[in-house]
Amino acid sequence: MGTTPTGLFPAPGSKAELEEGTVLSPRFGPDGLITCVTTDATTGEILMVAHMNAAALAKTLETGEAWYWSRSRGELWHKGATSGQIQTVTEMRVDCDQDALLMKVQVAGDGGCCHTGRRSCFYRRIETSGDGPRLVID
Amino acid sequence: MGTTPTGLFPAPGSKAELEEGTVLSPRFGPDGLITCVTTDATTGEILMVAHMNAAALAKTLETGEAWYWSRSRGELWHKGATSGQIQTVTEMRVDCDQDALLMKVQVAGDGGCCHTGRRSCFYRRIETSGDGPRLVID
Repeated sequence: MGTTPTGLFPAPGSKAELEEGTVLSPRFGPDGLITCVTTDATTGEILMVAHMNAAALAKTLETGEAWYWSRSRGELWHKGATSGQIQTVTEMRVDCDQDALLMKVQVAGDGGCCHTGRRSCFYRRIETSGDGPRLVID
Repeated sequence: MGTTPTGLFPAPGSKAELEEGTVLSPRFGPDGLITCVTTDATTGEILMVAHMNAAALAKTLETGEAWYWSRSRGELWHKGATSGQIQTVTEMRVDCDQDALLMKVQVAGDGGCCHTGRRSCFYRRIETSGDGPRLVID
């Protein structure tokens, strides 16, 4: 079995290995990234959707704190390093075809996750009644 | 304000409009897709992570049932059309920079979502104790 270009994780195997095996072989996209959904370990609330490259995932697994890849800044991102909103990982899961991660975290500092100051990035509901979709903050 | 190439949604505006506005202007990626996290409306469990193009999102908003873009098949995908696992949408949300969607659904049929037969695609936990990560079904 080969490894990813970074050598940090085994390259994805067969469909059966991917779906039923015990080997974590994340399927990073053409951009080298995998989607991560981050939820509050206590409430289950979805806090954010972000991305990890192999190095970010390896650091997260190694340290137990969330590291992402910042697409806007083009760099590894230790979530909370400047804001104090460190995310301590209590559980990580992977989906059937290993192209998405689910991470349950406890958030330090003021408990926020979103750069707008909110606790969750999903602070707007899409309302479809009336003339087309509108966003409502609630 | 322009529209997306498909004309189905307004093109993204300024950062302030994107983050605090009432206009849904999804930021589809270079591949024309946006990530959607789908959860069980009753339990909050994360069921799957999939993708929508503009047409899939428009059909979802219009019909109240989940439509995705199948990357493997390269076609619009009315979830449950063949399996009976239709997803009826009870709420949709969008994140701060409008590049991710959150959808709460009620699943018909046998209540499953994953093509492996499980209820959720996230049926494996990543265990980090011992010699590197291992996947555990639980």
